[in-house]
Amino acid sequence: MRKLDVAILGATGAVGQRFIQLLENHPWFRVSEVIGSHRSAGKTYAEAAHWILNDSPPANIAALTVKALDDPVRSPLVFSALPKEAAITRELDLAAAGHVVCTNASANRMLPDVPLLLPEVNGKHIGLVDIQRRKRGWTSGALIANSNCTVMPVVMSLKPLLKYGLRRLHLVSEQAISGAGYPGLSSMDMIDNIIPYVPGDEQKMAKESRKMLGYFNGEDIDTLDLVVSATCTRVPVIDGHLVNISAELEEGPALNSILDDWRTWQAPDPIPSLPSAPAFPLQYLEQIDRPQPRRDREAGRGMMTSIGRLRACPILGYKYAALSHNTVRGAAGCSIMNAELLAVSGYIEAFQPAESAYATVANFRAP
Amino acid sequence: MRKLDVAILGATGAVGQRFIQLLENHPWFRVSEVIGSHRSAGKTYAEAAHWILNDSPPANIAALTVKALDDPVRSPLVFSALPKEAAITRELDLAAAGHVVCTNASANRMLPDVPLLLPEVNGKHIGLVDIQRRKRGWTSGALIANSNCTVMPVVMSLKPLLKYGLRRLHLVSEQAISGAGYPGLSSMDMIDNIIPYVPGDEQKMAKESRKMLGYFNGEDIDTLDLVVSATCTRVPVIDGHLVNISAELEEGPALNSILDDWRTWQAPDPIPSLPSAPAFPLQYLEQIDRPQPRRDREAGRGMMTSIGRLRACPILGYKYAALSHNTVRGAAGCSIMNAELLAVSGYIEAFQPAESAYATVANFRAP
Amino acid sequence: MRKLDVAILGATGAVGQRFIQLLENHPWFRVSEVIGSHRSAGKTYAEAAHWILNDSPPANIAALTVKALDDPVRSPLVFSALPKEAAITRELDLAAAGHVVCTNASANRMLPDVPLLLPEVNGKHIGLVDIQRRKRGWTSGALIANSNCTVMPVVMSLKPLLKYGLRRLHLVSEQAISGAGYPGLSSMDMIDNIIPYVPGDEQKMAKESRKMLGYFNGEDIDTLDLVVSATCTRVPVIDGHLVNISAELEEGPALNSILDDWRTWQAPDPIPSLPSAPAFPLQYLEQIDRPQPRRDREAGRGMMTSIGRLRACPILGYKYAALSHNTVRGAAGCSIMNAELLAVSGYIEAFQPAESAYATVANFRAP
Amino acid sequence: MRKLDVAILGATGAVGQRFIQLLENHPWFRVSEVIGSHRSAGKTYAEAAHWILNDSPPANIAALTVKALDDPVRSPLVFSALPKEAAITRELDLAAAGHVVCTNASANRMLPDVPLLLPEVNGKHIGLVDIQRRKRGWTSGALIANSNCTVMPVVMSLKPLLKYGLRRLHLVSEQAISGAGYPGLSSMDMIDNIIPYVPGDEQKMAKESRKMLGYFNGEDIDTLDLVVSATCTRVPVIDGHLVNISAELEEGPALNSILDDWRTWQAPDPIPSLPSAPAFPLQYLEQIDRPQPRRDREAGRGMMTSIGRLRACPILGYKYAALSHNTVRGAAGCSIMNAELLAVSGYIEAFQPAESAYATVANFRAP
Repeated sequence: MRKLDVAILGATGAVGQRFIQLLENHPWFRVSEVIGSHRSAGKTYAEAAHWILNDSPPANIAALTVKALDDPVRSPLVFSALPKEAAITRELDLAAAGHVVCTNASANRMLPDVPLLLPEVNGKHIGLVDIQRRKRGWTSGALIANSNCTVMPVVMSLKPLLKYGLRRLHLVSEQAISGAGYPGLSSMDMIDNIIPYVPGDEQKMAKESRKMLGYFNGEDIDTLDLVVSATCTRVPVIDGHLVNISAELEEGPALNSILDDWRTWQAPDPIPSLPSAPAFPLQYLEQIDRPQPRRDREAGRGMMTSIGRLRACPILGYKYAALSHNTVRGAAGCSIMNAELLAVSGYIEAFQPAESAYATVANFRAP
Repeated sequence: MRKLDVAILGATGAVGQRFIQLLENHPWFRVSEVIGSHRSAGKTYAEAAHWILNDSPPANIAALTVKALDDPVRSPLVFSALPKEAAITRELDLAAAGHVVCTNASANRMLPDVPLLLPEVNGKHIGLVDIQRRKRGWTSGALIANSNCTVMPVVMSLKPLLKYGLRRLHLVSEQAISGAGYPGLSSMDMIDNIIPYVPGDEQKMAKESRKMLGYFNGEDIDTLDLVVSATCTRVPVIDGHLVNISAELEEGPALNSILDDWRTWQAPDPIPSLPSAPAFPLQYLEQIDRPQPRRDREAGRGMMTSIGRLRACPILGYKYAALSHNTVRGAAGCSIMNAELLAVSGYIEAFQPAESAYATVANFRAP
Repeated sequence: MRKLDVAILGATGAVGQRFIQLLENHPWFRVSEVIGSHRSAGKTYAEAAHWILNDSPPANIAALTVKALDDPVRSPLVFSALPKEAAITRELDLAAAGHVVCTNASANRMLPDVPLLLPEVNGKHIGLVDIQRRKRGWTSGALIANSNCTVMPVVMSLKPLLKYGLRRLHLVSEQAISGAGYPGLSSMDMIDNIIPYVPGDEQKMAKESRKMLGYFNGEDIDTLDLVVSATCTRVPVIDGHLVNISAELEEGPALNSILDDWRTWQAPDPIPSLPSAPAFPLQYLEQIDRPQPRRDREAGRGMMTSIGRLRACPILGYKYAALSHNTVRGAAGCSIMNAELLAVSGYIEAFQPAESAYATVANFRAP
Repeated sequence: MRKLDVAILGATGAVGQRFIQLLENHPWFRVSEVIGSHRSAGKTYAEAAHWILNDSPPANIAALTVKALDDPVRSPLVFSALPKEAAITRELDLAAAGHVVCTNASANRMLPDVPLLLPEVNGKHIGLVDIQRRKRGWTSGALIANSNCTVMPVVMSLKPLLKYGLRRLHLVSEQAISGAGYPGLSSMDMIDNIIPYVPGDEQKMAKESRKMLGYFNGEDIDTLDLVVSATCTRVPVIDGHLVNISAELEEGPALNSILDDWRTWQAPDPIPSLPSAPAFPLQYLEQIDRPQPRRDREAGRGMMTSIGRLRACPILGYKYAALSHNTVRGAAGCSIMNAELLAVSGYIEAFQPAESAYATVANFRAP
């Protein structure tokens, strides 16, 4: 199968690097354009990017010449790791020009016709792409966002519990420093210290969870009627956002029922067959002191959410901790899996894998 | 004024060391006996203690010979930093033998006639000492405890708000590693990681806050009728426990009223004149990203509680963060201040400072 | 090909866990016995081991029952992660009983007839096994050690330079905390701190490097005549020992010659074909601020040594930094690769892979 | 005694803040002007400075209005914490205009007529001020620098050993992150990691130590003929630079002689009487695992150098570790103590404390 060419917007930054790392050896997509700031344009990727992940960038990417943000883009599929301001118009322009744009930027995330897609949670929201195209007069283009990296473990862990009637959420996050990009937080702030505030995230926790857990009625999203009280804090951890969650469930299920729900839950086909999908999106850890960021963030190659410590909450009924890798499943990895779902759903004109192809593709990264 | 001799039980451990450090240059008390395990007994303190605080132990303490746990104790005042099991009977035996014992151990903390004393919060609970002496037939002896180090910033910050009718509390702590003693937590668990569980602390948060905020009716404590949901986590911070607090207040005061309460609140006389007392027990920090453990734990020489981020909570009404130094105000420093209050209240037979003495004593440690 | 059964001595400890992790999916060996202390014996591995690596132990290992240290051992090949005292006699007993024992313990490392084997550096020292068997009257048994984890990057990086006449070494290490096992160093010692001393390691740096770089004369090892001044320090890093090396080379080669040596150096056949062998044992990093522990320790799946910052030293002539993963290549991974070399060299009676088998085996762990 | 007005250049940065913190309650000097960038000018200090030290800026400083870098300066004494580029001309201009400028910037440090002053080490270099004034036609103005913060513990610990004939030095530093200012190093680089390179510092170690240990011949400095091989690394420690030092001493004294030298060494009068001077500049720590940054950096209120682990080096003869607080004694604290020496030496026209005043002044900060 011929691979689809993809472009990375904001390729030299922290999330851009994660896109490049996760797309190495991808069975369907290959990075053929890297796009950066004017300062980077014209240099090779190796020269332009201060690589902050392990090892070095893949050799074939290192040799690519970085394009400027307003240079023409050739690839049908575009992943965006742009900063917010740069993202606002450029992402919409590229979609209007016929590109399928999967973005990790928050800029256009709350536009009513942009799905905030997390396949296992709200795969059906992909239908918004039809609305988007009709409303905006786009043909092959589309703009699909993924959520804030702290909302992600919250909605993923709650998805199997929605049937009990979710009413209120009290959230206290302990977020990794990679969530702030690079250089992001000063080391002078993060050694022997925590910061009890993360700009903007408490608002996003509320707004984005209501949208993501909402219902696509064929025209737009009916947001979930949900009371959310969020507190976001930053801790000296490289990767992995942990959220302490208290939840109110109308039906009041037994704790064991919830454990069963988590242990058996899978998304409907074809989601579990997507190349980046973990076999099970959730794992419940029995040890009383888990999940822990360093030990559990890589579960399912960074694509699983780990849950632990389910117990009664005397105020809201239930409480537990959930953890996801914030720059893999909470950012670049989610965008990639979104693009995989778009492909198998026929939304990428230039690339339509036969069912036989994707249904049998093994997870492409070794465990 | 002649200083009162004091003994430190568990003098070589982490909290024992903090007692020794805080009592250096104390205007009323001087450490004259250091008591340790059988392994330490007979050695000089310098030999027996692996000093983990800054610098080295004070020279006069370093030269003392460590006594065994069951050796006779001479000092009228005893501070206990014993491990739980060792504390249970030894503390009661010493009190029965006529010593005033101020303990940081949790062993006897919840006995109905043992006050869980935090002077600014429940100074009147000191009256339990009379009950204790009457009931147990003690004359000069007494046993007074201080609370768990994580409960401490919670009750301190809530004290001025009790008048509004406190009903429910949702607490998520981010606790420093020194709370687990030495060696305590492995470095393999605490670098680039957090542990979402602290054994026993969630239960203590509920039980101890109800007792501390209760009413001494002249005979025993009427505990406060309070719903508490606590989650305790451990973060890679040396000292300083931060608690994310959501609180329900019956009267629903304006946020500004709460700020005023915090800024102006002082304990009744003679508490603010005690040598270890900060001028104001609380400080509210205006910066949106404070309190932070490393930057705020030393406020008031480790005896103040720092508060920040007061805002509305859509579930319980109010939320904010509070921080205290867990091994100073949350442990040894609180025991010492408790002993000061006992002294000025006439509960230490061997030592009764004239009011003129204590009312004018300056805070003995430089800012 | 039928896999060879192996036993892990000290299976529940930190290095024991690393053996289990690295042997998962090994093409030649499979863990069939896990051996621990009397406290662990009789429990399942899942119950007995407090797993400190990422995720959880492999399911098939988790279900094994832990044997006691003096229980009979069935597996022909034994990996030892025993503490020093336990290792002294048990390892020799097992070798005498016919087992091939590859040990990471330091207990028997300096015995004259025990090779201190690092295949790329001194593969020929494997001949000591014949001496050992002859001298001790062993037939199928053998005892092979790997070096201290801090010596390892030093000798690996110097191997290609021996031809220039190595005379003197000045070494200052910055060692990861995992080198001290679990629980090892207290978090109270390792946050916002370094410890300028590692018990025993400075002596080992000198003695072990002289032995490893020595010449096997057919009977014993002529140690290299080498002056070593070592300083060992501990830094708050999870894995990856970095050593700042100054070296005196008799011939005084140009810096570029050394770079060429490092970039092209490979061990003789069959070493590069061993399942655990990296294609190249060394990588020289051009960036001026590398190698870094977190970013480079996983190179070659933890089996490569990364070098950087080669420049002139006004005292000894040359200086540079070298880094290896201390619990992979510096411990369990080296023992495993040693066993692979023993197998292809005919020293494991029960298991002799045909050349066609091992010459074509791909590295069994994905990059 | 009326206090001398001082101005702080670069007052809002990390070192500027340390100047302000250390000058609070200074017996001779009071901060009356704070000078920053154009971006800060016109705001109050509280608004302009993102305070990164503990607690908050002193209230009287918080209320000062920040002046722009080219605004006229009123105070006779100026402390400079300017970035290198800004320092070059501004410091010389202010000195030419009659101000005594004590700078922590490296910009003008190596000018032949600018003393690199560390009172206990080279107090006599203060005589360069006369040369400077004569040569440049200055009357009351002067420019005095302090050294790089990593050189400082090296020269301080070597000063009492110069009599043995110091020939060669091999230095490997483990430097705290505060040495890079704020925001300085990214937290993404410094958690679970070290950086084996500090831009520019290896060169400074050589050049500045030769100048500081040189001899003032009445006209200029005869630099010490010293071979220095320096390697500088960055570790995840907030404050406190540790240097692993190997030294060659011509006379080959016994280790005990060196210990005696360190334990008894004091600078000549009037240096030990200066307000910021520690009673003894050096302390030798007997414990084999000291000095440690977090536990020893505050010794002598950050003004002492701690030494440990003296032992034989098979290459250079002697080795040991030395530690100083890099932003106190290694930066702002040194500039302040330099100014104190200038004052008592009659180099500050506007402020000449009587000997009776300074000889009896107690150290102004509590221990």
